Amino acid sequence: MKEFDLIEAFFKEKGHQRRDVQIGIGDDAAVLSVPAGQSLVVTTDTLIDGVHFPHNTPGRAVASKAVAVNLSDLAAMGAEPAWLSLSLSIPQVDENWLNGFSLGLQELTDYYSVQLIGGDTVRGPLSITVTAQGFVPQNQALTRSGAKPGDWIYVTGTLGDAGLGLDMMQGRMDVAARHKNYLSNRLNCPTPRVLAGTMLRRIATSCIDISDGLIQDLRHILKASDVSAIIQVDKLPFSQAMQDAVVNEQAIRYALTSGDDYELLFTVPEEQKSNLQHALSTTSEPVTCIGQITGGQDKLELRRGKEKVSYEMLGYQHFGD
Amino acid sequence: MKEFDLIEAFFKEKGHQRRDVQIGIGDDAAVLSVPAGQSLVVTTDTLIDGVHFPHNTPGRAVASKAVAVNLSDLAAMGAEPAWLSLSLSIPQVDENWLNGFSLGLQELTDYYSVQLIGGDTVRGPLSITVTAQGFVPQNQALTRSGAKPGDWIYVTGTLGDAGLGLDMMQGRMDVAARHKNYLSNRLNCPTPRVLAGTMLRRIATSCIDISDGLIQDLRHILKASDVSAIIQVDKLPFSQAMQDAVVNEQAIRYALTSGDDYELLFTVPEEQKSNLQHALSTTSEPVTCIGQITGGQDKLELRRGKEKVSYEMLGYQHFGD
Repeated sequence: MKEFDLIEAFFKEKGHQRRDVQIGIGDDAAVLSVPAGQSLVVTTDTLIDGVHFPHNTPGRAVASKAVAVNLSDLAAMGAEPAWLSLSLSIPQVDENWLNGFSLGLQELTDYYSVQLIGGDTVRGPLSITVTAQGFVPQNQALTRSGAKPGDWIYVTGTLGDAGLGLDMMQGRMDVAARHKNYLSNRLNCPTPRVLAGTMLRRIATSCIDISDGLIQDLRHILKASDVSAIIQVDKLPFSQAMQDAVVNEQAIRYALTSGDDYELLFTVPEEQKSNLQHALSTTSEPVTCIGQITGGQDKLELRRGKEKVSYEMLGYQHFGD
Repeated sequence: MKEFDLIEAFFKEKGHQRRDVQIGIGDDAAVLSVPAGQSLVVTTDTLIDGVHFPHNTPGRAVASKAVAVNLSDLAAMGAEPAWLSLSLSIPQVDENWLNGFSLGLQELTDYYSVQLIGGDTVRGPLSITVTAQGFVPQNQALTRSGAKPGDWIYVTGTLGDAGLGLDMMQGRMDVAARHKNYLSNRLNCPTPRVLAGTMLRRIATSCIDISDGLIQDLRHILKASDVSAIIQVDKLPFSQAMQDAVVNEQAIRYALTSGDDYELLFTVPEEQKSNLQHALSTTSEPVTCIGQITGGQDKLELRRGKEKVSYEMLGYQHFGD
């Protein structure tokens, strides 16, 4: 039995309304039209208070992050986002927090032209589950499994900012005042690379979004594609905030291992490099080549210039498999 | 950052596998084919430990209920179920519980020919969010808003069993030993009326599933359809367990106000009554006519034979609007 139903009160008919939504919030389920020739792409992510965002994060930022991490998964498949379902568990009805959450949701649904089509509200510890759906033309979805030896490895944006932002907010790092807002936004309101994702269809051979850190997410591609990789740590892209806050070795550590950046990591064959430059020239989304796929199974080598860099040199005792 | 990822370990490639799933568990998102001429139907429901199921409910029953309540929403739209996404929040990795949960999920996905296409596992208080998707032929979705004065009101199955089952399990009601298993299943493992829902397309003018009790859910239809209704309390269908456990007045109270039965409540115009009988004769799903839609706005009258029954006579002091 539902304890309360706030979806209609706070979220119905707010934000972007799409013509492919036949029935939205307010019946037992939503009824939707999927365009002919398109595949449906579906992802679900849950954020828990104190685990996936710091306790006492404002509602607006929580909504923003909950939507962004899901749109980022769609972007990593090359999909264009369309619809969101929301399950919101809250300990009590805090209208102020809910209004902030509703506003954050509305801003993102407006910006990305997606519509909230339904959901559930329950009383419980604060957590948010979003299911996001989108479309990709048939047989054009980007996956983790298509990388080939010789392909170049790219990332969008800059790396490590969310990790630095978390350390800043939790008092472990001191950062110049002029960078604080930027870093806190990189942590709380990541930018899903939706446009870049759709542009990479038929250009990238594999793609993933960086949620757990470059090394961990690259390993998913290596495993799925049955290949190895070389990463040039001297090519990793850093923000001005990162460069001002820490020495290069530490910036590399953030980039390689801290999560929550939600940049895209993808591979491009030599013959598609010019198409990539052309496609991205029409957008403002920067990309950087950071290495190359090699043969062999699931080995990851780090280099600075031509010199091999050991994980231990970067300060790690152990590193996974 | 994800604390752990159990979806692949416990759920990948178990249970029914569908040909319309191009990419299932294991990439950033699932990629799916929606058949031509069909609309997509989507619903999300969250179950919280101790709120939507009793604390210490076995994993198998929790999985069963989490899937069933979502399939019930699809059934209420006349949709045929296809895919499930799962977000599972668990306080710790209890392999025994997870194996039970995985088994329950597999049993239901096998039975209803649906496939788990992805999800997320996070560490947190026990809660389960399922997003279920299915298809309905274009313009044939059942909604809450089509009931017309003169339409007959029907329900599937029997009413009030889940409420009686909850009172039994929490020690408030004593029930004969021979009924205990039945009632506990009615509470923990409800049967979504999937086949009845699809049969009701083009026959029912409105439909909803009974999750919050007959009165509350009927009021959703009355409000959405802008009509009133008469319910014959002497026509309400009761199980043998209910008839043996309580006097008729109390059975009526369970039927009208206790939730979690997940039967379908629907309206059928006079001229469709024979089609209804014909359609249902091919299934084993019993239905009972319990009243009629009338004109006027959102008034609900209870009758025993031709005599009006007041809510107070049934033991209520107040009853909403």
